[in-house]
Amino acid sequence: MRVLVIGANGKVGKHIVFKLKKFDHEPVAMVRSTEQIPQFEEEGVATVLGNLEKDFESAFYNVDAVIFAAGSGPDTGADKTILIDQEGAIKSVERAKHFGVQRFVMLSSMAADRPESGPSGMKHYLYAKHRADEYLKQSGLNYTIVRPGGLTNNEGTGRVKLQEHMNNFGEIPREDVAETLVYLLSVPKAENKSYDLISGDQPIRELLV
Amino acid sequence: MRVLVIGANGKVGKHIVFKLKKFDHEPVAMVRSTEQIPQFEEEGVATVLGNLEKDFESAFYNVDAVIFAAGSGPDTGADKTILIDQEGAIKSVERAKHFGVQRFVMLSSMAADRPESGPSGMKHYLYAKHRADEYLKQSGLNYTIVRPGGLTNNEGTGRVKLQEHMNNFGEIPREDVAETLVYLLSVPKAENKSYDLISGDQPIRELLV
Repeated sequence: MRVLVIGANGKVGKHIVFKLKKFDHEPVAMVRSTEQIPQFEEEGVATVLGNLEKDFESAFYNVDAVIFAAGSGPDTGADKTILIDQEGAIKSVERAKHFGVQRFVMLSSMAADRPESGPSGMKHYLYAKHRADEYLKQSGLNYTIVRPGGLTNNEGTGRVKLQEHMNNFGEIPREDVAETLVYLLSVPKAENKSYDLISGDQPIRELLV
Repeated sequence: MRVLVIGANGKVGKHIVFKLKKFDHEPVAMVRSTEQIPQFEEEGVATVLGNLEKDFESAFYNVDAVIFAAGSGPDTGADKTILIDQEGAIKSVERAKHFGVQRFVMLSSMAADRPESGPSGMKHYLYAKHRADEYLKQSGLNYTIVRPGGLTNNEGTGRVKLQEHMNNFGEIPREDVAETLVYLLSVPKAENKSYDLISGDQPIRELLV
């Protein structure tokens, strides 16, 4: 599949792009600025320029699936949480629908399905992610939503725990999150489902089989 | 009608409470703290304590209609824009539905129906208001959404311009906004409609007749 990665320059996004190649998909890395292009082109990855706060329609041309992995990050204000994490995601869903892209995989966040339970400093972020996830669920697109626990930069282990709902939070390397998202892209059982995800014992390639 | 005013202690909210009395409705002023109670009780207005970020379920008991006029204001961060303006409104719609309250009047903001057109510093706010308005529209409640132009503290004139869509922005005294919201509460033609509102020539009490 030709897969548009929104937020390709992010920490999870980069892993997603290269995992897509590994799984024999054709990634298209959406990046915000020209300086972000060479790192992908040098590895033979197609790129497309797009800005979630402005225009990124052309990115959806000839795409079979979308993985949304963009986020405004911890160094910007909550205004960007609305404009990127919430509205950027909602616009991506709208565009995917408009362009007939069927498959949409969303990188969400642990507790985005129950934002009221989050720590007070995180609540606004969790509500923003929640609204985006709800929008996707009601869009009619064939979706998979993944809510990982605390992200680390540790090397991936290839083993995780994936469940529709977990009570115990945990951590997970970004690399394992990326591999799980890419794997689930082609798993029929994951269609129109939402999952919590942390590190665990199960090999990613045996999930939901 | 017994009308719950959410955000009764706000600048528009206070006008709404006293306009409701003037129109022979029975206002219930929802306030966040006990210090906000006397100003209403001294005028014979019932109050109920409720916090949009915590619990306010009890406020909906025995209520015929809701006017949502709460806002986090310009002195707080965008995290509060999410938690109050967006999520407080969405929760209010959910609660109104849950408690069988039929009529819901929303104080929105000019350009909340086209947030992408707003000035860059306002966009996150307009998107938050937009999401709340969209949630209300799809709730099944009998709604009226009013998007006033720039709010002033000038005395009300009793005359406005109300249209489903306006191209030219303008100002309007908070008192006139409040009177329009209260008036539209009982106007069948305003049910399930959204309007822009600025100062104008038409007497409020002749709108939509």
